[in-house]
Amino acid sequence: MAQKPSIPQGTRDFGPKEVQRRKYILQIIESVFKKSGFMPLETPSMENLSTLTGKYGDEGDQLLFKILNSGDYFKKLIEYNEKALGHEELDPTFLPSFSGKLSDLDSKRSLSFIAEKGLRYDLTVPFARYVVMNRNQISFPFKRYQMQPVWRADRPQKGRYREFWQCDADVVGSNSLLNEAELIRIYDEAFALLGIPVFIKMNNRKFLTALAEACGAPELIGAITVAIDKLDKIGIEKVEEELKEKGLTSNQIEKIKAYLLLPKSTNSLKDLGEICGNNEAFQKGLEEVNTILDFTGGDLNNQLELDFSLARGLSYYTGAIFEVVAISGTLKSSIGGGGRYDNLTGIFGLPDVSGVGISFGLDRIYDVMEEAKLFPETIRNSPTKIIFCHFDEKGRKFAYDTCLKIRKENIAAEVFPDITKKIGKQLDYANSLGIPYVAIIGDDEMRDQIFSLKNLETGIQQKVSLVELINTIQS
Amino acid sequence: MAQKPSIPQGTRDFGPKEVQRRKYILQIIESVFKKSGFMPLETPSMENLSTLTGKYGDEGDQLLFKILNSGDYFKKLIEYNEKALGHEELDPTFLPSFSGKLSDLDSKRSLSFIAEKGLRYDLTVPFARYVVMNRNQISFPFKRYQMQPVWRADRPQKGRYREFWQCDADVVGSNSLLNEAELIRIYDEAFALLGIPVFIKMNNRKFLTALAEACGAPELIGAITVAIDKLDKIGIEKVEEELKEKGLTSNQIEKIKAYLLLPKSTNSLKDLGEICGNNEAFQKGLEEVNTILDFTGGDLNNQLELDFSLARGLSYYTGAIFEVVAISGTLKSSIGGGGRYDNLTGIFGLPDVSGVGISFGLDRIYDVMEEAKLFPETIRNSPTKIIFCHFDEKGRKFAYDTCLKIRKENIAAEVFPDITKKIGKQLDYANSLGIPYVAIIGDDEMRDQIFSLKNLETGIQQKVSLVELINTIQS
Repeated sequence: MAQKPSIPQGTRDFGPKEVQRRKYILQIIESVFKKSGFMPLETPSMENLSTLTGKYGDEGDQLLFKILNSGDYFKKLIEYNEKALGHEELDPTFLPSFSGKLSDLDSKRSLSFIAEKGLRYDLTVPFARYVVMNRNQISFPFKRYQMQPVWRADRPQKGRYREFWQCDADVVGSNSLLNEAELIRIYDEAFALLGIPVFIKMNNRKFLTALAEACGAPELIGAITVAIDKLDKIGIEKVEEELKEKGLTSNQIEKIKAYLLLPKSTNSLKDLGEICGNNEAFQKGLEEVNTILDFTGGDLNNQLELDFSLARGLSYYTGAIFEVVAISGTLKSSIGGGGRYDNLTGIFGLPDVSGVGISFGLDRIYDVMEEAKLFPETIRNSPTKIIFCHFDEKGRKFAYDTCLKIRKENIAAEVFPDITKKIGKQLDYANSLGIPYVAIIGDDEMRDQIFSLKNLETGIQQKVSLVELINTIQS
Repeated sequence: MAQKPSIPQGTRDFGPKEVQRRKYILQIIESVFKKSGFMPLETPSMENLSTLTGKYGDEGDQLLFKILNSGDYFKKLIEYNEKALGHEELDPTFLPSFSGKLSDLDSKRSLSFIAEKGLRYDLTVPFARYVVMNRNQISFPFKRYQMQPVWRADRPQKGRYREFWQCDADVVGSNSLLNEAELIRIYDEAFALLGIPVFIKMNNRKFLTALAEACGAPELIGAITVAIDKLDKIGIEKVEEELKEKGLTSNQIEKIKAYLLLPKSTNSLKDLGEICGNNEAFQKGLEEVNTILDFTGGDLNNQLELDFSLARGLSYYTGAIFEVVAISGTLKSSIGGGGRYDNLTGIFGLPDVSGVGISFGLDRIYDVMEEAKLFPETIRNSPTKIIFCHFDEKGRKFAYDTCLKIRKENIAAEVFPDITKKIGKQLDYANSLGIPYVAIIGDDEMRDQIFSLKNLETGIQQKVSLVELINTIQS
């Protein structure tokens, strides 16, 4: 019967200290969201596959976790297929509008028989789906935050998990660039509170559009964006190679290189304009960047950096784009990103609703904070402030009565539940959980109503009354 | 392109007010868990199917949501099957230790080719799995709480969802009945804080064992438990019928009826002893009940009721069992349950680790509280305390500068992001979100640095300085 248990690849259990550290991060981010007037939303873990597929590119579709339909579909399918191969009569209710063997069906079509639902891949698409479904109840602009797990069937590796949390804030139904400034401020304040120094990188998709137009290749905007997005990972030479493969001429590539080599500063905007021949897309992007910088002001905790090489993979961005990179530590990975999308709800039938959003990657933030030792020391395994140890039945009863009195003062307290003469075992338990205080109940303690209170960190022991005990723990 | 979006049957979106109300419940339950020294744990949403199957009975296995393996397994399987039917050579690496057509495989075996993972069905089995995997790091007794969603492919109906939350507290590695008393107190305090009057029902599986033995049919304990468990739903006659079908004699059924008709009180324990011939199982159960009642004491907020007809469906319970029923409202459904299990970790290879646990059903608690109007009025849609409205670019800039100052005082504040002359639209927005204060920025306000602060609930408007504005909102 007995199996050696394990958990699926790329997933993790979170023990007491990890859960509390994760909650510490979540609470800080949530407090900043709320102070800026964002409202919470939660969507189901499962979405219909029709909602998810085609939204994240082909690669994204491959990474969706799909849920097997209920019932023994597999067996039914095999039976159906064998009948088809044997030219027997097929049940038309089982597979409407198709008769033939199953391997002739394309894989997308055939899949819907065994899976119609998938796990959430990000929080943006479910949000867009929610907005469209609830458009008549929502007061626009709709400012929502959402902090939930997402799932991707990615190859597991360091810092990349199959179940991980995103914390998103989005505003939809407002074209105002004040929203971009608000989101920059949210990044800035949250990372300041977490103690992580970051670069907040900003660019504008309209500059990339302007560049493609200046190259005389507006239709190649997608290819150019995808290539530039890889710059940090593969370097300028490989980007050049990729552009050459996509059919760009050496003149065009030179222009793109000049663009990528622009210093990361507002001072480069004039040169950028020249590269793009000051076309309309450039002018529009320039106006947006200036307005956002004007709203944001100069009093940020972190550096806001205009980085023209920032591209972001997702195709739905149309204006400002953001990425946050932690400065300290060996993990230079992105810990947040986002941007403006002018028509995300359009795919669900609600056009002309512009939105802008950012995302915090909880798991990567955790890894950065752990490496840089940024978590408060006060996060212990156990919430318990005092544990009562004892030698016998009578002592345990006395300990429990006292424990209940102390909890009335809102102090987390517990009694070692089992009877054991081995007081060392009880103290080991307290130590391993990081419980700061212990009181051992013996006959003297019960008779005199005086407690031997020991601070397990300092080792100091003192005889105190119940009131003194409560005061000591609360101080 | 445009699809009409929807969400999977039995799942729900939670809007701003619902999320906050759910968090209100979760926070109260969590605070009680922590005060009693329970530590948080979180496990992955997905578990290996080998961890889940066979733990919840045949019906439970049917209700597991299974995750389709990555890759195009379906197509591969169909190809494999067609080759098998055509007596072609089969690829042994694809389906080791089997050659033949797939419909000859039993459905359990064949399933593992398309699904190896499933969604969490409850929090108890993943907890047992965690304990076994981490036995060498854990300090026993291990007191953990866990508040996470679970998934069941149940037929959706009122009050029953396919994704719902459980809040569990368990102690493993301790035989002490003090733990049972602690868990009763947790139920009692949490429901008192939530404002829901409840019956906390308790029974002991050993009484059911004693009854089966007294009937001379110890092997029928399972059938008797399952039948009794249905008493509330189907009534005593139908329970009799079911027992008859299971092969019990009328003498045996009379004994069981006498047991079920015992008044719900400790006064019935003597009669219960007589029904069971005071056998050993009864004596052990009696001792446990008395010890638990002694530890629990008489100062509970809610009634602790000894209910001999309580049986609980799950087979792994061995001692005390609990169920909590809300008293007010039309929803008489169970909002919590639990019990002692002597060998749950045994299925994963770690025998002799006794545990006891309880569960809160968040979604049912929510429904009870909504019906009885028990949520605080202070839970609004938006966290925002004040919104600044304006007429033009200049007004918006002034509003935003003021807003940033106010946020420094830790007040949630926002500025209507878009420029619109229609002040009514801005006020509608504030009203629909339940924002309590609004300040409209016009030329006078900017010149005099005096704000027209309106309380949207009372309608009272006053002219105030920035300091007065902050004080008014904070008070």
